[in-house]
Amino acid sequence: MPQTPSWVKQLKPSGPQGSDLLASERAASNVPVEQLSELLFTKETIQKKNKILATLKSEEMFDKSPNYYAGRYEYFEKSVARAKALRNLKLRENWTLEEYRIACDLISEPLPYSLHEGMFVVTLKDQGTPEQQERFTKPADDYKIIGCYAQTELGHGSNVRGLETTATWNPERKTFTMHSPYLTASKWWIGSLGKMANFACVMAQLIINGKSYGPHPFIVQIRDLKTHEPLENVHVGDIGPKVGYNTMDNGFLLFNNVEVPHISMLARFSEVDPNTSKYVRKADPKLIYGTMTWVRSTIVMQSGSALARGVTIATRYSAIRRQFTDRDEPKAKVETPVLNYSMVQIRLFPLLAATYALHFTGKAMMNLYTRAQETLSKGGASILADLHGSSCALKALSSTIAVEGLEVCRRACGGHGFSSFSGIGNWYGNYLPTVTFEGDNYMLTQQVANYVLKSARAALAGKAAKNETGHILAEYLKKKDIRPSFDITSSNADIVSAFAWRAASLIFDIQNKRDNLKTAWNDLLVDFYRMNKAYAQYMVVVNFYNTLQNTKAAPEIESVLSTLFRLYALHTLDQEASDFTATGACTERQVAVARSTVEQKLLKEIRPHALRLVDAWDFDDYVLDSSLGRHDGKVYEDMFYRASELNPLNRVTVDPYPESPVCFRKVEEAHPKSKL
Amino acid sequence: MPQTPSWVKQLKPSGPQGSDLLASERAASNVPVEQLSELLFTKETIQKKNKILATLKSEEMFDKSPNYYAGRYEYFEKSVARAKALRNLKLRENWTLEEYRIACDLISEPLPYSLHEGMFVVTLKDQGTPEQQERFTKPADDYKIIGCYAQTELGHGSNVRGLETTATWNPERKTFTMHSPYLTASKWWIGSLGKMANFACVMAQLIINGKSYGPHPFIVQIRDLKTHEPLENVHVGDIGPKVGYNTMDNGFLLFNNVEVPHISMLARFSEVDPNTSKYVRKADPKLIYGTMTWVRSTIVMQSGSALARGVTIATRYSAIRRQFTDRDEPKAKVETPVLNYSMVQIRLFPLLAATYALHFTGKAMMNLYTRAQETLSKGGASILADLHGSSCALKALSSTIAVEGLEVCRRACGGHGFSSFSGIGNWYGNYLPTVTFEGDNYMLTQQVANYVLKSARAALAGKAAKNETGHILAEYLKKKDIRPSFDITSSNADIVSAFAWRAASLIFDIQNKRDNLKTAWNDLLVDFYRMNKAYAQYMVVVNFYNTLQNTKAAPEIESVLSTLFRLYALHTLDQEASDFTATGACTERQVAVARSTVEQKLLKEIRPHALRLVDAWDFDDYVLDSSLGRHDGKVYEDMFYRASELNPLNRVTVDPYPESPVCFRKVEEAHPKSKL
Repeated sequence: MPQTPSWVKQLKPSGPQGSDLLASERAASNVPVEQLSELLFTKETIQKKNKILATLKSEEMFDKSPNYYAGRYEYFEKSVARAKALRNLKLRENWTLEEYRIACDLISEPLPYSLHEGMFVVTLKDQGTPEQQERFTKPADDYKIIGCYAQTELGHGSNVRGLETTATWNPERKTFTMHSPYLTASKWWIGSLGKMANFACVMAQLIINGKSYGPHPFIVQIRDLKTHEPLENVHVGDIGPKVGYNTMDNGFLLFNNVEVPHISMLARFSEVDPNTSKYVRKADPKLIYGTMTWVRSTIVMQSGSALARGVTIATRYSAIRRQFTDRDEPKAKVETPVLNYSMVQIRLFPLLAATYALHFTGKAMMNLYTRAQETLSKGGASILADLHGSSCALKALSSTIAVEGLEVCRRACGGHGFSSFSGIGNWYGNYLPTVTFEGDNYMLTQQVANYVLKSARAALAGKAAKNETGHILAEYLKKKDIRPSFDITSSNADIVSAFAWRAASLIFDIQNKRDNLKTAWNDLLVDFYRMNKAYAQYMVVVNFYNTLQNTKAAPEIESVLSTLFRLYALHTLDQEASDFTATGACTERQVAVARSTVEQKLLKEIRPHALRLVDAWDFDDYVLDSSLGRHDGKVYEDMFYRASELNPLNRVTVDPYPESPVCFRKVEEAHPKSKL
Repeated sequence: MPQTPSWVKQLKPSGPQGSDLLASERAASNVPVEQLSELLFTKETIQKKNKILATLKSEEMFDKSPNYYAGRYEYFEKSVARAKALRNLKLRENWTLEEYRIACDLISEPLPYSLHEGMFVVTLKDQGTPEQQERFTKPADDYKIIGCYAQTELGHGSNVRGLETTATWNPERKTFTMHSPYLTASKWWIGSLGKMANFACVMAQLIINGKSYGPHPFIVQIRDLKTHEPLENVHVGDIGPKVGYNTMDNGFLLFNNVEVPHISMLARFSEVDPNTSKYVRKADPKLIYGTMTWVRSTIVMQSGSALARGVTIATRYSAIRRQFTDRDEPKAKVETPVLNYSMVQIRLFPLLAATYALHFTGKAMMNLYTRAQETLSKGGASILADLHGSSCALKALSSTIAVEGLEVCRRACGGHGFSSFSGIGNWYGNYLPTVTFEGDNYMLTQQVANYVLKSARAALAGKAAKNETGHILAEYLKKKDIRPSFDITSSNADIVSAFAWRAASLIFDIQNKRDNLKTAWNDLLVDFYRMNKAYAQYMVVVNFYNTLQNTKAAPEIESVLSTLFRLYALHTLDQEASDFTATGACTERQVAVARSTVEQKLLKEIRPHALRLVDAWDFDDYVLDSSLGRHDGKVYEDMFYRASELNPLNRVTVDPYPESPVCFRKVEEAHPKSKL
């Protein structure tokens, strides 16, 4: 690439500089950013994070500057190197598991050991016998064997009972034969399987004496421990490029009658008696289902932070990007930052409010879960059941809000949002599968329907459970004849009640359709989806509200959080207006007032605090890896630097004429290391 | 990569085969696919297309099978080669411009000559004098010079008046000095500029004797015609990777006082008199603004087809993908194709209806435009003005529907939708900028507001224009005191009237706020957005309705198109329910009926015809490049083939242990050519 000429190096952006604009934005608000960050994350966690951040930044391996340019092949190679380096760093720095996870979060891309660590080892520990722990978990903990969790198949995802891979018990040899009878039986989408794993925890239909006992987990070696080549009769590889997640080797796996020893079947909950060949159930596997609730609550909490990256980037850039002067002030000389436009505010600020709402909701649910487990004896069971239902509903809602919100943020950045340097596109691509995994967001609504139908029947029988859902259903039944009105304009508690009313009403509506009108299940799926949204939105609103009630903070923080609460709730109410009016939770007039409160009042109240509210999310520039979202506002300088200096395509000259068979004319291999 | 073992090659998908499933889907409907295709595209165009398709398929250069694996660097190199090959093919096959465009459409990825062809040459022809045509257009037509259209800058997009690049007239030397005074003056996002162009049509502020005359177009050489290296004092390059469009070299460009001759300024509409140094206006540049209406109508029409790719893929795959048995028929042995689930239908079928609605709307507008131009004398002017306003509104609505609909289709494919092999992800990425370019979809709503405000004032003064907008405004004023009711359940014409009523009501609402309540422009932007949606949705509904009225086709076609019309209209009405009730276009009860008509009736009516309705879009497998969307239903075979055989990552072995510094252990370079 031709050296950047000196006359280019001297150029500055025109007009007020980004740094000055962000500085005056920050000066205009009195929200104490550091205190708010600590309220979100705790001081201790922030300190840990900063220490780990400094370590990562000092390692060349974790320099992010080449990331956006690499093709998948080279990017995955780098990703393997990074996974190894991070594991070695953990040992060198003596990181706890929590600290290791913080490091992964800061790196912000999937690493190919993560399913080994997050699923293979965890499954071994949860479901293995002491003998299996000794045999498998120990070498796995030492990375002598690298594993994955192989459940999903080419032909089956959500319907686990339909899996086609078989594990047939051979009584004479006391072994299992692992087999893939069809192409659709191929394991598919399995993270860390494609290239990394030499072992897999394979979910397969257990067959004893011709009878199927349903899916069970088997620990199977698939690659040679030395050459890492696939073992005989094992066909394994990477499933190819994806919309995102390309630093992960999602893989496929087929068996052709591969025999494995008796110890392969994880036997904490059930086993095949090697002598009698009888299937023996030893414990209830439901015992471990609680962890799924935990995982889902984590997704809810992370959805806030996932979305906050996009909101941070878009808000900072919108404070710098100026476009047109105000139509009603034609004499203004300087163009207006687009963050002043109401059409930009209405897109970004409700999402800003959602980041806080989702974070507090996830956190509250995790606390509730911990407390319920401690008090399982006195009512904890009903709370756990409720947490299961509401965490399914919330997982679906929160990941959808985050995914769709990130795209709104990207588009709010205008043309530059489409550049990889915006930092939103890649992040969106990597976050995107969240709407499909850990329960597809649409499928989950049927599970939620199961739960609320049961709850509604109990409430109608006067036996409403002593949990959140039971409470709102019982309240609804108590008051439905008098049709209460909620003062959504001046009472936050009444806003919560209106959301509860709408959710309860939709729940009883599907209960009526199913139980009294005998509507077919399939004809109710769309109703379930709508009910799920109402139910989950209520959970978010009530958790946000409770957090405000229970939080002691500086008055500036309490005040701005209360505004965010009302913005989130009233904007949602406006978006779902026809639900609220149809269920009698609001009148059409109230909806109109809610809308104008949002548009004419709350957006304006948030405006001066917008920058500080995103700053409180405390994303380092290293984490965001975004030109547009730079903390110092050097947006254009960074865009230009990445395009002009780092872009490998600028180290080649094209022959542009159609007659010439040559396309690229020269390539300098070196990748410049200098940074802005 | 280890050879695929023979036992793998013998595997088939389980259960009913995809081919059989699609065959029985097709057998279950009597919609004449070929006739419907001809109604969409004309027989002549389809024949042309098939001939070109055969040519492209026979050329190895246009084999798409390596596309999904390449990193940007190598992909762009391939893209340059393809651009050249296509140009040479055009000459060899003697293609017309229309045929060349069909070929581009079939290749379905941006090619780096396209801004040369679509913008540079067109601008020269539209805005050049005969002398400039001779000097620039001729060599450009022969690809001796390769150009681009350099308007957008790093710091300025929509606000063209704010461009910072200057072209200063030097009276003594009779030249212009092109200069970039700031970093933000750098041209940015310019297609074909990054690597290909040796000339640029640069929009720059014309300055004569210290006075600015606003942006004007200048033809400037930027690279050496032989070495293709940038000329002195020109800094030019590629702006880097993007969310999509990575086969295009969007570029940046900076000038350091580069002097160009007098002939550089395109002078059909205005020029600098070289002797007097006076600015001379020669014709009204508004003359060429009509073409922008044409371009926008094209975007509307293409939005139907862009979306139809996703709908085709998702519908075909959903007919094959089976998941769970029907809950109310627990004894069913075979799992149900997910296309039978109402939650899948409610996501896909309204989009299927939208593809037809948008296609017919775009087509109708282009016809109207042609006719209006022919009859400019008798009323054409008012129709053209109306076409301008409605095409802005429709561009915003239709590209948003297509972009968001494509993502809905991708997610409706479940986990496999995330694979590049779904064929939706890359297409989405390439289509995505449509919501931002040719007028950002949010910015456009202000232009629409300008137009409808004028129209509303005219209507109030009893001088409603004789065009579509004038018509609905006048009707509204005539009837608003009697508040008519529309029979949306049984009359298609009344559905159209309800959409017109809502749109007119929202238009008068903003007119009232602006003119009577003196609301600030900035406080109306969200209202403009809502009005724009209502106005554009009315245009789609009325154009779809008129097409049905004016189309003679087989009764099966007329019947299914009428169902699609009602599905599109009533589903939209349900989505926008609070608008319809608030404006009095519908009652809450009517909304509820519309919803249940959609969910309990129309979805079921479309179900048997879904496959044939997507088949009628006539996408060849070559075009879709999708495993999931294959016409023959060999979904799983194709997924597996691409993953196992074509994927370059499967030609390498990883060393998975953290202690080892080696990551990839061997690479075989050869790319297999065999196809499924």
